[in-house]
Amino acid sequence: MDAQPITNTEIYAILESVRRTTPLIQCITNNVTVNFVANTILAVGGAPAMVDIPEEAEVFAAVSSALYINLGTVHADQRMSSLSAARTAKDSGVPWVLDPVAVGMLPVRTALARKLLSYSPTVIRGNASEILALAGHKGAGRGVETGNEVDQSCEAAMELARQSGATVSVSGPVDLITDGNRILRLKNGTDLFTRITGAGCALGGVVAAFCAVAPAFEAAVAANAVYAVAGELAASTSAGPGTFQVHFLDALASAALERDGNQVSLA
Amino acid sequence: MDAQPITNTEIYAILESVRRTTPLIQCITNNVTVNFVANTILAVGGAPAMVDIPEEAEVFAAVSSALYINLGTVHADQRMSSLSAARTAKDSGVPWVLDPVAVGMLPVRTALARKLLSYSPTVIRGNASEILALAGHKGAGRGVETGNEVDQSCEAAMELARQSGATVSVSGPVDLITDGNRILRLKNGTDLFTRITGAGCALGGVVAAFCAVAPAFEAAVAANAVYAVAGELAASTSAGPGTFQVHFLDALASAALERDGNQVSLA
Amino acid sequence: MDAQPITNTEIYAILESVRRTTPLIQCITNNVTVNFVANTILAVGGAPAMVDIPEEAEVFAAVSSALYINLGTVHADQRMSSLSAARTAKDSGVPWVLDPVAVGMLPVRTALARKLLSYSPTVIRGNASEILALAGHKGAGRGVETGNEVDQSCEAAMELARQSGATVSVSGPVDLITDGNRILRLKNGTDLFTRITGAGCALGGVVAAFCAVAPAFEAAVAANAVYAVAGELAASTSAGPGTFQVHFLDALASAALERDGNQVSLA
Repeated sequence: MDAQPITNTEIYAILESVRRTTPLIQCITNNVTVNFVANTILAVGGAPAMVDIPEEAEVFAAVSSALYINLGTVHADQRMSSLSAARTAKDSGVPWVLDPVAVGMLPVRTALARKLLSYSPTVIRGNASEILALAGHKGAGRGVETGNEVDQSCEAAMELARQSGATVSVSGPVDLITDGNRILRLKNGTDLFTRITGAGCALGGVVAAFCAVAPAFEAAVAANAVYAVAGELAASTSAGPGTFQVHFLDALASAALERDGNQVSLA
Repeated sequence: MDAQPITNTEIYAILESVRRTTPLIQCITNNVTVNFVANTILAVGGAPAMVDIPEEAEVFAAVSSALYINLGTVHADQRMSSLSAARTAKDSGVPWVLDPVAVGMLPVRTALARKLLSYSPTVIRGNASEILALAGHKGAGRGVETGNEVDQSCEAAMELARQSGATVSVSGPVDLITDGNRILRLKNGTDLFTRITGAGCALGGVVAAFCAVAPAFEAAVAANAVYAVAGELAASTSAGPGTFQVHFLDALASAALERDGNQVSLA
Repeated sequence: MDAQPITNTEIYAILESVRRTTPLIQCITNNVTVNFVANTILAVGGAPAMVDIPEEAEVFAAVSSALYINLGTVHADQRMSSLSAARTAKDSGVPWVLDPVAVGMLPVRTALARKLLSYSPTVIRGNASEILALAGHKGAGRGVETGNEVDQSCEAAMELARQSGATVSVSGPVDLITDGNRILRLKNGTDLFTRITGAGCALGGVVAAFCAVAPAFEAAVAANAVYAVAGELAASTSAGPGTFQVHFLDALASAALERDGNQVSLA
């Protein structure tokens, strides 16, 4: 069944809750976009901590407000850290988000992602090809880019959500969020997100921050909405991908974001 | 002999071909500038994929449109990945670019660069000291900076090109590109490239993207030209290295770059 | 005793000395903020070289003008490199700066930081919680953020300075710098430094660059002052953390910084 859209007021209340409580967000993420992920989490009001060495990841997961695991560049150390931190998060009741970058086309990360599923991620965020692949369907990913439309992945996303118990968030021109029962589509956003590296990674970090203060489905919807609206605001003042990345951080950090209640377009 | 300069029209046609075909560019590159390299490849229209773990690098090289190997921070994993990916690229006919950062002054990367030469790079891009060192001459590099003038490396660049079969691209105030027979000098550019980290690395990535759609010498000339012209445009609106890096990505991504046919100065 | 404030003229003279001599600054630093650290060192006029693999770190330390060791993400390789580079720096008379990120709450880096102290760092730079922890007191750090006020760490900072022989620089709303005898407080700065990742890391790199041309205490004071003044200038033209980071690099690189002799507020 389709979900009753969450209201603008509910969405911005979740953002304000992040800003008020500054949740500690542990990130085990790729080295390509790690700086942007940290700055994006700071912009929404979280406290990012990129603690990813095997000797420290587990200890830290137990005291984090939420955990973000991104498989962009899974060196041996990060594979070990991901597994021990995810297990600890599960055991400690710490919400955690899985971002299965390029899963499907590359063997190491695909096997790792399947193992991580057994530790009950709170939210899984990816593009259509990644979600299809993780659900066991045939995807058409090309490197870190999707080769599938979001709607092609709708059934797979619902299956994956039911099997894993996670909320599944599929990013694309229209985002799709489902917990296996409810489905919401979000129309906000800008094409400029595809012109910079790390837009998906940083969204995953924001979803983790929102999971620290709200239930999975609501957190995923609110994170996608706030992120997409900030992207629209930034796009309107940007001359290209360089200025867009800069203005996006400004927009996301601006108190005007929630004060003005910019319209979220859910269906 | 000196080459007949490539025309502006030919240069921008290669850029348009990248934008039209979105070649998949695998990068095995240093963690200092990896984000900038990815964003720069996106800006010219390529699809960067930073696949550098030993278990995945080889598989991916066989399906990439081009491969970029940069020796900036060659940890053990990257040394293994570089060798297996370069060998695969050679065997699969995938063009690949070698960026021998700081070769000459540091033993590990110097030995690695020599081994990589046996896998027939398509283009070698470096500063004068790095090219001198790789050709077996005495360079005067200081960290990642050159201690030599581009013209001092002209003979060494031609030798290296003849021995390796690669086009050699020497970056500096005037860039020099040679395939061992033809030589071109490019006067475009801006001193601001030396005030940010990664200008050389990102150029290497752009050369790889251009190699996916054009022969080595033409690709290297066109990549250097487009990069330098975008740098000039960005410099004219920048207050320092911070804004320059941002405006440079905007300029490189702008359709105006090819539409206006900004004058390239080759000799 | 409190120190006679260093004059504006003396501070900007140290900056000009860095700009004139372009000291080579080796950095063994975390992969989250490594790009910003490199760009910041370039902006003050240094030549950063991120040489951190075990096979090269030692060789390079012997020829560097100064060394910067930051414990943000201490993977096994960086732990080895840090120890051998610090030992070499000590033996070669190369000044070096220790940035004990998140020391106190995480076991691996806390043990490493204690070992590194035996190699006589020139300056130790951290937030109040990190300095308290390194001095053996109980800190209240939370991830990479401090849980303590700068003034709570004053006694610990003086103790640590006396025991280690280092100048200790504590960052916060008011910075505190002591060599165990003299104490200076610096009121310049902006809250925006806490809204981006890496402001502390990049300051550590700048302190290292200044140590290449001036004695420890004076170098630490001048680096903190120049950094904070550039931050104030950038904040006055920034709409949020995105533009702040960009304008900060512009301000730090601007010749106007020293020419206008912007007022430093020391006590």
